[in-house]
Amino acid sequence: MSFRFGQHLIKPSVVFLKTELSFALVNRKPVVPGHVLVCPLRPVERFHDLRPDEVADLFQATQRVGTVVEKHFHGTSLTFSMQDGPEAGQTVKHVHVHVLPRKAGDFHRNDSIYDELKQFKFKSFTHLPKVPQLQKHDKEEEDSPASWRSEEEMAAEAAALRVYFQ
Amino acid sequence: MSFRFGQHLIKPSVVFLKTELSFALVNRKPVVPGHVLVCPLRPVERFHDLRPDEVADLFQATQRVGTVVEKHFHGTSLTFSMQDGPEAGQTVKHVHVHVLPRKAGDFHRNDSIYDELKQFKFKSFTHLPKVPQLQKHDKEEEDSPASWRSEEEMAAEAAALRVYFQ
Repeated sequence: MSFRFGQHLIKPSVVFLKTELSFALVNRKPVVPGHVLVCPLRPVERFHDLRPDEVADLFQATQRVGTVVEKHFHGTSLTFSMQDGPEAGQTVKHVHVHVLPRKAGDFHRNDSIYDELKQFKFKSFTHLPKVPQLQKHDKEEEDSPASWRSEEEMAAEAAALRVYFQ
Repeated sequence: MSFRFGQHLIKPSVVFLKTELSFALVNRKPVVPGHVLVCPLRPVERFHDLRPDEVADLFQATQRVGTVVEKHFHGTSLTFSMQDGPEAGQTVKHVHVHVLPRKAGDFHRNDSIYDELKQFKFKSFTHLPKVPQLQKHDKEEEDSPASWRSEEEMAAEAAALRVYFQ
């Protein structure tokens, strides 16, 4: 049995949590280590399409997933983000919550970036996952298997996370 | 009666929705028009501190709020973001969900920014609301009343939104 994620079929090997109405999977292109996704089992496109019981289950699952990835990846904070619709940067037409473990300095790799960004109201941009102008660019990225992690690497990560929920 | 939001006391005039366990308020410094916040009534710092019934109520309220601000501010998509902990950019120590109506071109005001950002993996940064390096900078901004909207402007916006929930 596989899981539907928009137009994609997801193998159980990369899914690490299944609840009554939701599931969580590892990311083929994580932005930070431990960047995972939580989705409703029912493949609906927009957040407003979810029933109240689906909203409750999705975010109760998201809360559990956040606690686990923060611990497993030694984070000290979490970023939760949902891109709800194309103008918010949604590329897969299936509601999904991004969960990212954060730690001090996780984005200090390239300090010169922040110097450049500060003068352009960095705070505003960093509130917003992606902008329409970058969609095509991002889609192409997303559809390039060359940039994905191997199935083995993803399955190993999912297996390690699955243990916390047993 | 006022609402507690971390260290702040929030006047009912800027709150436009109160549910059994949550409330929603307009933003004194919106990133885009209609950028509002949804919070649990109980002032807890981290998402993992919330009980399951509080998680359900918070995101069922967030879903209703998203539908309303997307309609009222003529958006076509929504960005939902939760900065859970200091390393994720949380400045107010009270769980809160950012809800931002999005529309095509809403961040095209300064195209030259994106040209500069693209070469620095803009996608990665825009997944992440703020970075630790900018916390001090942002806190100072946040504490400067000069940059806030007037109480009258915020109360008028809250009154307009309140109508949708009656």
